[in-house]
Amino acid sequence: MHLTSYTDYALRTLVYLGTRQGLALAKIKDIANIYNISNNHMSKVVYELGQLGLIKTIRGKNGGIKLALPPEEINIGEVVRKTENLHIVECFDRNNNTCIISSACKLKFILHEALQTYLGVLDNYTLADVVSNRFDLLEIFNFHEKNA
Amino acid sequence: MHLTSYTDYALRTLVYLGTRQGLALAKIKDIANIYNISNNHMSKVVYELGQLGLIKTIRGKNGGIKLALPPEEINIGEVVRKTENLHIVECFDRNNNTCIISSACKLKFILHEALQTYLGVLDNYTLADVVSNRFDLLEIFNFHEKNA
Repeated sequence: MHLTSYTDYALRTLVYLGTRQGLALAKIKDIANIYNISNNHMSKVVYELGQLGLIKTIRGKNGGIKLALPPEEINIGEVVRKTENLHIVECFDRNNNTCIISSACKLKFILHEALQTYLGVLDNYTLADVVSNRFDLLEIFNFHEKNA
Repeated sequence: MHLTSYTDYALRTLVYLGTRQGLALAKIKDIANIYNISNNHMSKVVYELGQLGLIKTIRGKNGGIKLALPPEEINIGEVVRKTENLHIVECFDRNNNTCIISSACKLKFILHEALQTYLGVLDNYTLADVVSNRFDLLEIFNFHEKNA
Protein backbone atom coordinates (compact mmCIF):
# COMPACT_ATOMS: atom_id res chain seq x y z
CA MET A 1 0.00 0.00 0.00
CA HIS A 2 1.98 2.93 -1.34
CA LEU A 3 0.96 6.39 -2.36
CA THR A 4 1.71 6.74 -6.07
CA SER A 5 4.93 8.57 -6.84
CA TYR A 6 2.76 11.30 -8.35
CA THR A 7 1.02 12.00 -5.01
CA ASP A 8 4.31 11.63 -3.16
CA TYR A 9 6.04 14.26 -5.32
CA ALA A 10 2.98 16.51 -5.36
CA LEU A 11 3.13 16.59 -1.55
CA ARG A 12 6.90 17.12 -1.54
CA THR A 13 6.53 20.00 -4.01
CA LEU A 14 3.92 21.64 -1.79
CA VAL A 15 6.24 21.21 1.21
CA TYR A 16 9.05 22.88 -0.75
CA LEU A 17 6.86 25.80 -1.84
CA GLY A 18 5.23 26.13 1.57
CA THR A 19 8.67 26.31 3.17
CA ARG A 20 9.78 29.04 0.76
CA GLN A 21 6.68 31.25 1.10
CA GLY A 22 7.71 34.91 0.78
CA LEU A 23 11.12 34.09 -0.70
CA ALA A 24 12.12 34.20 -4.38
CA LEU A 25 9.98 32.20 -6.79
CA ALA A 26 10.98 28.56 -7.06
CA LYS A 27 12.34 26.85 -10.19
CA ILE A 28 11.17 23.44 -11.30
CA LYS A 29 14.75 22.27 -11.84
CA ASP A 30 15.70 23.17 -8.24
CA ILE A 31 12.81 21.12 -6.84
CA ALA A 32 13.68 18.24 -9.20
CA ASN A 33 17.31 18.38 -8.01
CA ILE A 34 16.38 18.52 -4.34
CA TYR A 35 14.21 15.42 -4.61
CA ASN A 36 16.45 13.72 -7.16
CA ILE A 37 13.82 13.20 -9.84
CA SER A 38 13.83 14.16 -13.51
CA ASN A 39 12.85 17.68 -14.65
CA ASN A 40 10.32 16.02 -16.89
CA HIS A 41 8.57 14.19 -14.03
CA MET A 42 8.66 17.31 -11.85
CA SER A 43 7.22 19.44 -14.71
CA LYS A 44 4.25 17.08 -14.92
CA VAL A 45 3.66 17.27 -11.16
CA VAL A 46 3.86 21.08 -11.27
CA TYR A 47 1.51 21.22 -14.25
CA GLU A 48 -1.09 19.07 -12.47
CA LEU A 49 -0.78 21.08 -9.25
CA GLY A 50 -1.40 24.18 -11.38
CA GLN A 51 -4.49 22.57 -12.90
CA LEU A 52 -5.72 21.85 -9.38
CA GLY A 53 -5.34 25.53 -8.51
CA LEU A 54 -2.70 24.82 -5.87
CA ILE A 55 0.29 26.49 -7.49
CA LYS A 56 0.82 29.47 -9.78
CA THR A 57 3.38 29.90 -12.54
CA ILE A 58 4.82 33.36 -13.09
CA ARG A 59 6.42 33.70 -16.52
CA GLY A 60 9.37 35.88 -17.52
CA LYS A 61 13.02 36.33 -16.67
CA ASN A 62 12.55 36.21 -12.91
CA GLY A 63 9.62 33.83 -13.21
CA GLY A 64 9.03 30.61 -11.37
CA ILE A 65 6.38 28.93 -9.28
CA LYS A 66 4.74 29.55 -5.92
CA LEU A 67 1.72 28.43 -3.96
CA ALA A 68 -1.58 29.80 -5.25
CA LEU A 69 -3.07 29.73 -1.74
CA PRO A 70 -1.77 30.29 1.77
CA PRO A 71 -0.53 26.99 3.31
CA GLU A 72 -3.38 27.00 5.83
CA GLU A 73 -5.85 26.79 2.95
CA ILE A 74 -4.24 23.72 1.40
CA ASN A 75 -5.79 20.69 3.05
CA ILE A 76 -3.68 17.51 2.93
CA GLY A 77 -6.72 15.20 2.68
CA GLU A 78 -8.03 17.22 -0.24
CA VAL A 79 -4.68 17.07 -2.04
CA VAL A 80 -4.49 13.29 -1.62
CA ARG A 81 -8.10 12.81 -2.75
CA LYS A 82 -7.31 14.81 -5.90
CA THR A 83 -3.95 13.28 -6.76
CA GLU A 84 -4.15 9.67 -5.59
CA ASN A 85 -5.67 6.60 -7.22
CA LEU A 86 -7.91 5.46 -4.36
CA HIS A 87 -8.86 2.09 -5.86
CA ILE A 88 -7.55 0.11 -2.89
CA VAL A 89 -8.76 -3.11 -4.49
CA GLU A 90 -9.99 -4.01 -7.97
CA CYS A 91 -13.71 -3.71 -7.18
CA PHE A 92 -13.34 -0.04 -6.16
CA ASP A 93 -12.92 0.63 -9.88
CA ARG A 94 -16.27 -0.39 -11.36
CA ASN A 95 -14.96 -0.17 -14.91
CA ASN A 96 -12.16 -2.65 -14.34
CA ASN A 97 -13.61 -5.09 -11.84
CA THR A 98 -13.41 -8.78 -12.64
CA CYS A 99 -13.86 -10.16 -9.10
CA ILE A 100 -16.86 -12.49 -9.21
CA ILE A 101 -17.78 -12.12 -5.53
CA SER A 102 -17.99 -8.34 -5.44
CA SER A 103 -21.82 -8.26 -5.47
CA ALA A 104 -21.90 -10.15 -2.15
CA CYS A 105 -18.51 -9.22 -0.71
CA LYS A 106 -18.47 -7.47 2.64
CA LEU A 107 -14.73 -6.82 2.51
CA LYS A 108 -15.25 -3.87 0.18
CA PHE A 109 -17.37 -2.08 2.81
CA ILE A 110 -14.72 -2.67 5.47
CA LEU A 111 -11.93 -1.46 3.17
CA HIS A 112 -14.06 1.54 2.17
CA GLU A 113 -14.64 2.44 5.83
CA ALA A 114 -10.90 2.13 6.52
CA LEU A 115 -10.03 4.31 3.51
CA GLN A 116 -12.50 7.02 4.54
CA THR A 117 -11.02 7.01 8.05
CA TYR A 118 -7.51 7.28 6.56
CA LEU A 119 -8.53 10.29 4.47
CA GLY A 120 -10.39 11.73 7.45
CA VAL A 121 -7.13 11.86 9.41
CA LEU A 122 -5.44 13.69 6.52
CA ASP A 123 -8.39 16.12 6.44
CA ASN A 124 -7.34 17.28 9.90
CA TYR A 125 -4.11 18.78 8.56
CA THR A 126 -3.15 21.59 6.24
CA LEU A 127 0.15 22.43 4.59
CA ALA A 128 0.66 25.01 7.35
CA ASP A 129 0.88 22.13 9.87
CA VAL A 130 3.35 20.31 7.66
CA VAL A 131 5.66 23.32 7.28
CA SER A 132 5.23 24.62 10.83
CA ASN A 133 8.98 23.88 11.24
CA ARG A 134 9.81 25.70 8.00
CA PHE A 135 13.15 26.98 9.24
CA ASP A 136 14.39 23.42 9.78
CA LEU A 137 13.19 22.50 6.31
CA LEU A 138 14.68 25.65 4.80
CA GLU A 139 18.04 24.79 6.31
CA ILE A 140 17.93 21.37 4.60
CA PHE A 141 16.87 22.86 1.26
CA ASN A 142 19.54 25.58 1.41
CA PHE A 143 22.25 23.10 2.35
CA HIS A 144 21.36 20.85 -0.59
CA GLU A 145 21.08 23.74 -3.03
CA LYS A 146 24.51 25.03 -2.05
CA ASN A 147 26.01 21.56 -2.37
CA ALA A 148 24.21 20.55 -5.57
CA MET B 1 -2.95 3.43 -3.07
CA HIS B 2 -3.68 -0.22 -3.74
CA LEU B 3 -3.35 -3.27 -1.61
CA THR B 4 -0.77 -5.53 -3.26
CA SER B 5 -2.28 -8.35 -5.29
CA TYR B 6 -0.76 -10.70 -2.71
CA THR B 7 -2.86 -9.21 0.12
CA ASP B 8 -5.88 -9.00 -2.16
CA TYR B 9 -5.72 -12.71 -3.04
CA ALA B 10 -4.84 -13.70 0.52
CA LEU B 11 -8.07 -12.02 1.67
CA ARG B 12 -10.07 -13.57 -1.19
CA THR B 13 -8.68 -17.02 -0.32
CA LEU B 14 -9.71 -16.59 3.31
CA VAL B 15 -13.19 -15.50 2.17
CA TYR B 16 -13.43 -18.64 0.00
CA LEU B 17 -12.32 -20.92 2.83
CA GLY B 18 -14.44 -19.13 5.42
CA THR B 19 -17.48 -19.54 3.20
CA ARG B 20 -16.82 -23.27 2.79
CA GLN B 21 -16.24 -24.03 6.48
CA GLY B 22 -17.54 -27.54 7.25
CA LEU B 23 -17.75 -28.55 3.58
CA ALA B 24 -15.23 -30.66 1.63
CA LEU B 25 -11.62 -29.49 1.67
CA ALA B 26 -10.84 -26.87 -0.97
CA LYS B 27 -8.43 -27.32 -3.89
CA ILE B 28 -5.95 -24.65 -4.88
CA LYS B 29 -6.92 -24.98 -8.55
CA ASP B 30 -10.59 -24.32 -7.74
CA ILE B 31 -9.75 -21.11 -5.88
CA ALA B 32 -7.41 -20.07 -8.69
CA ASN B 33 -10.20 -20.70 -11.24
CA ILE B 34 -12.80 -18.81 -9.22
CA TYR B 35 -10.63 -15.72 -8.98
CA ASN B 36 -9.12 -16.17 -12.44
CA ILE B 37 -5.48 -16.22 -11.39
CA SER B 38 -2.74 -18.74 -12.13
CA ASN B 39 -2.35 -21.91 -10.04
CA ASN B 40 1.20 -20.83 -9.46
CA HIS B 41 0.24 -17.46 -7.96
CA MET B 42 -2.49 -19.07 -5.86
CA SER B 43 -0.06 -21.76 -4.61
CA LYS B 44 2.26 -19.02 -3.33
CA VAL B 45 -0.60 -17.24 -1.55
CA VAL B 46 -1.72 -20.53 0.04
CA TYR B 47 1.85 -21.36 1.07
CA GLU B 48 2.25 -17.96 2.78
CA LEU B 49 -1.12 -18.23 4.52
CA GLY B 50 0.03 -21.62 5.78
CA GLN B 51 3.26 -20.09 7.07
CA LEU B 52 1.17 -17.47 8.89
CA GLY B 53 -0.80 -20.26 10.59
CA LEU B 54 -4.05 -19.21 8.94
CA ILE B 55 -4.66 -22.23 6.74
CA LYS B 56 -3.90 -25.92 6.96
CA THR B 57 -3.00 -28.33 4.17
CA ILE B 58 -4.25 -31.89 4.43
CA ARG B 59 -2.30 -34.25 2.18
CA GLY B 60 -3.55 -37.39 0.43
CA LYS B 61 -6.16 -38.43 -2.12
CA ASN B 62 -9.00 -36.43 -0.56
CA GLY B 63 -6.64 -33.74 0.66
CA GLY B 64 -6.93 -30.03 0.23
CA ILE B 65 -6.87 -26.88 2.30
CA LYS B 66 -9.01 -25.35 5.02
CA LEU B 67 -8.83 -22.60 7.62
CA ALA B 68 -6.55 -23.39 10.55
CA LEU B 69 -8.69 -21.25 12.88
CA PRO B 70 -12.38 -20.46 13.20
CA PRO B 71 -13.30 -17.35 11.12
CA GLU B 72 -13.99 -15.33 14.27
CA GLU B 73 -10.35 -15.80 15.30
CA ILE B 74 -8.97 -14.44 12.03
CA ASN B 75 -8.68 -10.68 12.39
CA ILE B 76 -8.68 -8.71 9.15
CA GLY B 77 -6.33 -6.01 10.46
CA GLU B 78 -3.87 -8.67 11.56
CA VAL B 79 -3.98 -10.39 8.15
CA VAL B 80 -3.33 -7.08 6.34
CA ARG B 81 -0.49 -6.17 8.74
CA LYS B 82 1.14 -9.53 8.01
CA THR B 83 0.64 -9.64 4.25
CA GLU B 84 0.83 -6.03 3.09
CA ASN B 85 3.80 -3.79 2.38
CA LEU B 86 2.89 -0.85 4.60
CA HIS B 87 5.57 1.53 3.33
CA ILE B 88 3.06 4.19 2.26
CA VAL B 89 5.92 6.46 1.22
CA GLU B 90 9.62 5.95 0.69
CA CYS B 91 10.71 7.16 4.15
CA PHE B 92 8.64 4.46 5.89
CA ASP B 93 11.28 2.04 4.65
CA ARG B 94 14.44 3.17 6.43
CA ASN B 95 16.66 0.92 4.33
CA ASN B 96 15.54 2.46 1.04
CA ASN B 97 14.91 6.08 1.93
CA THR B 98 16.55 8.73 -0.24
CA CYS B 99 14.27 11.68 0.63
CA ILE B 100 16.50 14.43 1.97
CA ILE B 101 13.83 16.13 4.08
CA SER B 102 12.74 13.08 6.06
CA SER B 103 14.61 14.10 9.23
CA ALA B 104 12.48 17.27 9.49
CA CYS B 105 9.36 16.18 7.59
CA LYS B 106 6.07 16.28 9.46
CA LEU B 107 4.17 14.58 6.64
CA LYS B 108 5.48 11.20 7.72
CA PHE B 109 3.83 11.54 11.15
CA ILE B 110 0.52 12.51 9.55
CA LEU B 111 0.70 9.61 7.09
CA HIS B 112 1.67 7.28 9.92
CA GLU B 113 -1.31 8.41 12.00
CA ALA B 114 -3.61 7.90 8.98
CA LEU B 115 -2.20 4.42 8.34
CA GLN B 116 -2.64 3.37 11.97
CA THR B 117 -6.24 4.59 11.87
CA TYR B 118 -6.80 2.64 8.64
CA LEU B 119 -5.47 -0.54 10.23
CA GLY B 120 -7.44 0.20 13.40
CA VAL B 121 -10.68 0.05 11.40
CA LEU B 122 -9.67 -3.33 9.95
CA ASP B 123 -8.85 -4.53 13.49
CA ASN B 124 -12.56 -4.17 14.28
CA TYR B 125 -13.48 -7.00 11.90
CA THR B 126 -12.85 -10.71 11.69
CA LEU B 127 -13.34 -13.14 8.83
CA ALA B 128 -16.62 -14.14 10.51
CA ASP B 129 -17.98 -10.64 9.80
CA VAL B 130 -16.82 -10.88 6.19
CA VAL B 131 -18.52 -14.24 5.59
CA SER B 132 -21.61 -13.53 7.69
CA ASN B 133 -23.55 -13.82 4.40
CA ARG B 134 -21.82 -17.09 3.53
CA PHE B 135 -24.85 -18.57 1.78
CA ASP B 136 -24.88 -15.70 -0.73
CA LEU B 137 -21.15 -16.21 -1.29
CA LEU B 138 -21.56 -19.98 -1.54
CA GLU B 139 -24.19 -19.53 -4.21
CA ILE B 140 -21.75 -17.46 -6.27
CA PHE B 141 -18.91 -19.95 -5.78
CA ASN B 142 -21.13 -22.94 -6.66
CA PHE B 143 -22.52 -21.22 -9.73
CA HIS B 144 -19.02 -20.45 -11.02
CA GLU B 145 -17.69 -23.92 -10.22
CA LYS B 146 -20.56 -25.57 -12.12
CA ASN B 147 -20.01 -23.25 -15.08
CA ALA B 148 -16.22 -23.35 -15.10
